[in-house]
Amino acid sequence: MSRLDSFIRRMQAQRDCLNWAAEQVGGLPGPILEVGLGNGRTYDHLRALLPGRDIYVFEREVRAHPDCIPAADRLLLGDIQETIPCAAARLGRSAALIHCDLGTGDHAANVRMGEMLGALLDSMLAPGGYVVVNQPLDVQRWTRLPEPPGVPRDRYFIYRAAE
Amino acid sequence: MSRLDSFIRRMQAQRDCLNWAAEQVGGLPGPILEVGLGNGRTYDHLRALLPGRDIYVFEREVRAHPDCIPAADRLLLGDIQETIPCAAARLGRSAALIHCDLGTGDHAANVRMGEMLGALLDSMLAPGGYVVVNQPLDVQRWTRLPEPPGVPRDRYFIYRAAE
Repeated sequence: MSRLDSFIRRMQAQRDCLNWAAEQVGGLPGPILEVGLGNGRTYDHLRALLPGRDIYVFEREVRAHPDCIPAADRLLLGDIQETIPCAAARLGRSAALIHCDLGTGDHAANVRMGEMLGALLDSMLAPGGYVVVNQPLDVQRWTRLPEPPGVPRDRYFIYRAAE
Repeated sequence: MSRLDSFIRRMQAQRDCLNWAAEQVGGLPGPILEVGLGNGRTYDHLRALLPGRDIYVFEREVRAHPDCIPAADRLLLGDIQETIPCAAARLGRSAALIHCDLGTGDHAANVRMGEMLGALLDSMLAPGGYVVVNQPLDVQRWTRLPEPPGVPRDRYFIYRAAE
């Protein structure tokens, strides 16, 4: 499979997982978190799926399309090791859905940061809240859920926190 | 439609057009040109579709995945306004297939460069050769072909030079 084929499959898996998760959180209060804005495509998708919901975006440095940059009071700029603890102190474990796609392309670095990343995201996730993420994360309070129908295994990952 | 949905559709259209064009050039001799390497995904796709064919890549500055960088004698580095005339002087109008995806995200700049780009690509395209490109180009010797079945209109463009 070429990198183009593989990339298309990953994008489809990402979209299908977000679509599925957005349906689940319809009745679950709390903000949505987008960890890693990138070009802003998934942020745009989340706000289309969940109109009216508060979406907080964590990004080191904004490089997104101008149409896909959140309002200043919803954009938390800096290293997530600083911005997430700061946001968690204010918002607590309240997020209904966290999407995290920190794509460095450096698989080894992603795995190394996995433990830290899981703990950071967990510090903001509401009981019964969902995490959609581009890499496996091992957090005791979370259960990995199966991919939605039609999504190949292990391209994208969905977790739910204990209620 | 969100930017994520739109992006997935564009990637699918790109792949389906390349797959279709690669089938057409099976019996047509001459090199393949990749104008704009980017992250290297479509280059990887083309070499998977057309094993053994010479693929020349034009790029201003290489930022591709290390696995997707062509051999030095197939990589023409610099501004295409210099590298294409230089390659055309050596290879002539011999290319069986040209894929061009110069995605700046700046639509107006792309349109402005369209006339120059059409003439540059035409200077290397064999009679009966194919062009697969991310923007419309108006070249007298070319005929626009319909998209392959299932590909939405105007997301990607296919032309063929007169024989």
